[in-house]
Amino acid sequence: MTTQAKHSSAALPLGFQWGAVKAGIKASGKLDLAVAIAPKGANAAAMFTSNQLVAAPVTVGRRHLISTSGRVSAVLVNAGNANCATGAAGIDACEATCRAAAEAFGCVFDQVFPSSTGIIGVPFPADKVIAAMPAIKQALGSTVEHAETFARAIMTTDTKMKVDYAVIADQSAGTEIRIFGTTKGAGMIHPQLGMPPAPPHATMLAYIFTDLVADSAELTALLQPSVERSFNSISIDGDTSTNDTVLLIASGASGIKLDHSNRAAFEAELNRVCASLAHKIVDDGEGVGHVVTLHITGARDAAEAKQVAKAIAHSPLCKTAWSSADPNWGRLMAATGYSGVPFDPNRVKVSIGPHLVFADGLRVPSFDKAATHATMMEREYTITIDLGQGKGECRFLTCDLTAEYVAINADYSS
Amino acid sequence: MTTQAKHSSAALPLGFQWGAVKAGIKASGKLDLAVAIAPKGANAAAMFTSNQLVAAPVTVGRRHLISTSGRVSAVLVNAGNANCATGAAGIDACEATCRAAAEAFGCVFDQVFPSSTGIIGVPFPADKVIAAMPAIKQALGSTVEHAETFARAIMTTDTKMKVDYAVIADQSAGTEIRIFGTTKGAGMIHPQLGMPPAPPHATMLAYIFTDLVADSAELTALLQPSVERSFNSISIDGDTSTNDTVLLIASGASGIKLDHSNRAAFEAELNRVCASLAHKIVDDGEGVGHVVTLHITGARDAAEAKQVAKAIAHSPLCKTAWSSADPNWGRLMAATGYSGVPFDPNRVKVSIGPHLVFADGLRVPSFDKAATHATMMEREYTITIDLGQGKGECRFLTCDLTAEYVAINADYSS
Repeated sequence: MTTQAKHSSAALPLGFQWGAVKAGIKASGKLDLAVAIAPKGANAAAMFTSNQLVAAPVTVGRRHLISTSGRVSAVLVNAGNANCATGAAGIDACEATCRAAAEAFGCVFDQVFPSSTGIIGVPFPADKVIAAMPAIKQALGSTVEHAETFARAIMTTDTKMKVDYAVIADQSAGTEIRIFGTTKGAGMIHPQLGMPPAPPHATMLAYIFTDLVADSAELTALLQPSVERSFNSISIDGDTSTNDTVLLIASGASGIKLDHSNRAAFEAELNRVCASLAHKIVDDGEGVGHVVTLHITGARDAAEAKQVAKAIAHSPLCKTAWSSADPNWGRLMAATGYSGVPFDPNRVKVSIGPHLVFADGLRVPSFDKAATHATMMEREYTITIDLGQGKGECRFLTCDLTAEYVAINADYSS
Repeated sequence: MTTQAKHSSAALPLGFQWGAVKAGIKASGKLDLAVAIAPKGANAAAMFTSNQLVAAPVTVGRRHLISTSGRVSAVLVNAGNANCATGAAGIDACEATCRAAAEAFGCVFDQVFPSSTGIIGVPFPADKVIAAMPAIKQALGSTVEHAETFARAIMTTDTKMKVDYAVIADQSAGTEIRIFGTTKGAGMIHPQLGMPPAPPHATMLAYIFTDLVADSAELTALLQPSVERSFNSISIDGDTSTNDTVLLIASGASGIKLDHSNRAAFEAELNRVCASLAHKIVDDGEGVGHVVTLHITGARDAAEAKQVAKAIAHSPLCKTAWSSADPNWGRLMAATGYSGVPFDPNRVKVSIGPHLVFADGLRVPSFDKAATHATMMEREYTITIDLGQGKGECRFLTCDLTAEYVAINADYSS
């Protein structure tokens, strides 16, 4: 009933066109301005960073979604400049680009949804975005090539384009709903997305396009739990950006609404696409050598499980040990211990991959250092910490800390 | 009235003897077992890590202070093994070493105060400590050389011995009170010390000896505010150890109590010694290239100021920028923004050294990148963030994150 078609234009949701151009914002001269339009309009739901400091496009995007009750006709994304900490001039610049896009694509001003990613605090070159409008209008199309051009243009320090696709067959109608998602990382990644008017946080941008028939409230209800288990359950460096944005946008062009026959399948595929994109972000994180899933179980609730996961995911000592495949479970226990979650160390069990390493308050007699080290030499593995005091659990995706991460971010770049 | 005498045996508090030996706990074969005794006894106050996972000597030390109402005759410290996550056997091992010390130094069992620092999760070699008792008894003495042998033996990854001295003249009596303090770092440093029975956190150990006449309750009242502004206001890596301990121990041998004539001077010198030792820890932190004081002002209260300071001090993106002297104020503002403290970005002012870089919601027009970079090339400088919404403030000491830190901690060491 549910199928997944990758890299097939048949999988692209109907009712959208994508395009991208080189507007001269990135110093590298690469693609840096992306547009997606819904010629007949679309409904959308968005979640934004919880950072107190928000970029101009986050302020403007929230305002637009409120004023249109979630109606969006164009998504306008640039890379190379975050338009953050740019004051009133930054807001004016963002609005000017939205007006230019509205004119180019024939929609009303506040149905343009803007995003930016790149350097903070540098005046935003609205003139370059506005000047690129005729070219980007020419570049629009609805093939996979067009969609993936959009995906490439939003990249910053990413080394790979990040996309995923899904098709949900509707048994009764013989038709299908499609999903196309794309995202970008790759540093300042610890998204803590909330619904407006929550505060904002890491430059992760994600756009999920679908041709489902749904209103903004329904999309919000679909998006929140999916984001909580995907984008809100990853961390590369614990730094929550000022620009993080996830947009779920539905053109309605499939003609299909969710009902009892297809809801579970759609939700499963939306969850899978979000999880897949979140995984791609960590896998392509700055300087990442190992992708580590923290599976925290036996907590009193899911929130406490996540609190433990975050303490470990943000511990430089745990992360550096992972970089050398060092089975240093003492650092895992120390980070669990300062997470702020009360627990009894004597009831905790720690496993690295299939290897139980700590139980009953001390290293297990069967501790196999060589085998555990071998597991940690893999690109990906899971660390399981059972707190032994309840049924709350979470899976949190993170990575090691390497000298390469330090080198990338120590670059004299401001 | 207050003088400071460094490296003079005249400055050492009366009523103590110090010594250290090589007990074979450190793989390097260096000094690894230190003892301080108060032959006529002493009163003490201690603060321990707030980590939920505590090492055996923390459990035993707390218990002993409670059972003796703060009476301590011997301090027994080893480096090379933290005796943490070692289960009931670790507690037994710690108690066995306390019994051996009590016999060697002629005091009761629970007047021995134990500490350990080193690797977590490895069975504790109590036999080596016990076997070293005759040698350490021979090594005891009350000169600066003896005291500094104690200071060297407690080192782990520290590259320098850390000591400080103070003499507080008592005008009325023509006599003086003396302070000798020593500490060790140099990784897993983000002490969050609380009074027992608070939970524990980073392997920082600090011992402050004085010959003041004071009971345990009075020492506690002196220690807490001093620790809050010193050891609890530093972070190297945000990792709170399982063994952190600060002990203030008073022999009473000066014969002087605190009163209106000398209290302010003693408190000032105790604060100075604690601050000086805390500074030495950060300055000698693993891989540290720059020592940065975060001066957060204009907060609604001191707690919120510290919350902002910690978000910045634990941000890999801020810390890597400092390593290359990059005046990336955008990362400072982003970390302030996700600290969880509500504020209005338009009222915030950020200065690096004497250079105002951000105000009124954007980079100041006078931003002098070259001059700011030059300030950040210094070994030490201050970043001031004025939140513009109150009178709360704090000073928090931290450091950059370097590839050398990663290399030190990625060493396959478990």
